[in-house]
Amino acid sequence: MFSISIPPVSNRHADALRHKIDTKTKPLGALGQLEDLALKIGCIQSTLNPVLRNPTIVVFAGDHGIAAEGVSAYPQEVTFQMVLNFLAGGAAINVFSRQHGIALHVVDAGVNFDFKDHPQLIKAKIGHGTRSYLQEPAMTLDQCRQALARGSEIVDEIHQSGSNVIGFGEMGIGNTSSASILMSLLCGIELEHCIGRGTGLDSTGLKHKIQLLTQAVEHHVWDGTPLSALTVFGGFEIAMMCGAFLKAAELKMLLLVDGFIATSAVLVASKFHPHVLEYCCFSHQSDESGHQRLLEYLKAEPLLRLNMRLGEGTGAAMAYPLVQASVNFLNEMASFESAGVSDKDA
Amino acid sequence: MFSISIPPVSNRHADALRHKIDTKTKPLGALGQLEDLALKIGCIQSTLNPVLRNPTIVVFAGDHGIAAEGVSAYPQEVTFQMVLNFLAGGAAINVFSRQHGIALHVVDAGVNFDFKDHPQLIKAKIGHGTRSYLQEPAMTLDQCRQALARGSEIVDEIHQSGSNVIGFGEMGIGNTSSASILMSLLCGIELEHCIGRGTGLDSTGLKHKIQLLTQAVEHHVWDGTPLSALTVFGGFEIAMMCGAFLKAAELKMLLLVDGFIATSAVLVASKFHPHVLEYCCFSHQSDESGHQRLLEYLKAEPLLRLNMRLGEGTGAAMAYPLVQASVNFLNEMASFESAGVSDKDA
Repeated sequence: MFSISIPPVSNRHADALRHKIDTKTKPLGALGQLEDLALKIGCIQSTLNPVLRNPTIVVFAGDHGIAAEGVSAYPQEVTFQMVLNFLAGGAAINVFSRQHGIALHVVDAGVNFDFKDHPQLIKAKIGHGTRSYLQEPAMTLDQCRQALARGSEIVDEIHQSGSNVIGFGEMGIGNTSSASILMSLLCGIELEHCIGRGTGLDSTGLKHKIQLLTQAVEHHVWDGTPLSALTVFGGFEIAMMCGAFLKAAELKMLLLVDGFIATSAVLVASKFHPHVLEYCCFSHQSDESGHQRLLEYLKAEPLLRLNMRLGEGTGAAMAYPLVQASVNFLNEMASFESAGVSDKDA
Repeated sequence: MFSISIPPVSNRHADALRHKIDTKTKPLGALGQLEDLALKIGCIQSTLNPVLRNPTIVVFAGDHGIAAEGVSAYPQEVTFQMVLNFLAGGAAINVFSRQHGIALHVVDAGVNFDFKDHPQLIKAKIGHGTRSYLQEPAMTLDQCRQALARGSEIVDEIHQSGSNVIGFGEMGIGNTSSASILMSLLCGIELEHCIGRGTGLDSTGLKHKIQLLTQAVEHHVWDGTPLSALTVFGGFEIAMMCGAFLKAAELKMLLLVDGFIATSAVLVASKFHPHVLEYCCFSHQSDESGHQRLLEYLKAEPLLRLNMRLGEGTGAAMAYPLVQASVNFLNEMASFESAGVSDKDA
């Protein structure tokens, strides 16, 4: 495992932040989740006046051997086609990133296609898709370590360019299957409760998916470590995202966690380094069955519940204005004293 | 009643809009509530390419005679102090409106204070606060009609200046009491289930509030009409907001409904003209007890649930980026065909 050290978020400024929040011209607690978020961001940045700089979303794309077994409603080629769509600016994540002034990078973590150079594309291909874990581990241990390290390097560069808030999204036909198995193994939740319709399976398709994934899990002997779960059942984009989460937390960035797949990557990351969770803002509770349960397991309270189930980082992008709002009220709102407003206890 | 005519929203473009949404590069329905919202806005504007112009939030402020009876955790003077805070730019709604490029107007609908002129202040004072409905009707029938008409005029001017999306907020110590009684009468829901802690009552305060409002309702004979409910138990800001909602719907604007008080105003509006609800986007489900039930009564699905309970239009402001996102994806996303992405059924 590449070297990462994630300290717990310091509570040194927590009382002063709470006091600052409580003396704003509003009833105690009246800004709800925005107040919790302002407190968290202030603690992460160790300041009473946090600032969000160069918000960035990175979409990791990878192909999955399991996709050939019919676990998705879409063919594998959609992964590379959607990467081209990201690079052409036509996907949902392009629209929402533009709207909120979020820089967007796309990473080829392991797509079964050879892309030309593009200014927004980061080439980090570990392989042309994983193998099918119905028969063999999705990747080798070495590939998994490479993916983790590469994710870490990508975040390091983005941080050096001045960003302190980062969201991760993904694209990979078949990757809800990986996410479901990782969730089941690492949370100890029955596989059936971790599997959903993905991008749109019907009931027959869902039944087939459950049967197939159960068979896959039974086929392997798991040694109980997050590294081997990731190696056997992961995807290149999930492993790279996992490394990215870890590095971003080490760098004390605010992490915007997108939907089901991104949450499964942060779950794996938390089994390596539990404190990673303290740097996370959970953006959106996906409509994908299993995500709600996974968020509950992580004791995470998502900001949004819009019944979206798209991935790509779209949940993180949609939540960004709320994150910005939490910082803005902390920095810009008047206090009872400065505005001459009578407080409740005055 | 001033003359208003609200036609149902036309479904003429609904099929074409649904087709446009469904052929975007995403699985069917994967943008969840944003898809419903895009459809609604397209239908309201009768176009496949809706545009949001000059988003505006109007905060209506008024004082309440009932406030003297101890139904709020804050003294009545907080109403005018907060209006001054709005005009100085220091309140939460100022911060969030600035963040999202939303124009902000503040209306003195009936505050117990005489304000100097200010470019953001619209002077529409009906009286220096309502009377206490513990003893007598909050306002006269003539005052109620004036407030409705004045709200309508204010929206008319904003519409003429080029806005087609408008949110309403409020400020008025004691106004959750009015909202609770209006909800109970007009929905036929027991008063106790409509009353909450407002800006922060403790349990003793809440008990006192329930007792007092029950007494107030028993004191009057209600004739069953929305106009008399509004006259006897309303506030100047609630009545003006009600007139504003009606006019905005007549002008086919998109209405952003804020929290509990704003929803009570739209409830009254819907009893005058039921089609007003078709123009509404419900922004945020407040933490105020009763709001969830009121939204259910109106069959409204709010965009946000952030445990906020502040009013001022803050819920509407926080929801605005989601509304903008729904229009943006409809206008800017590539289709499967244009992006060369394989569709599910291809």
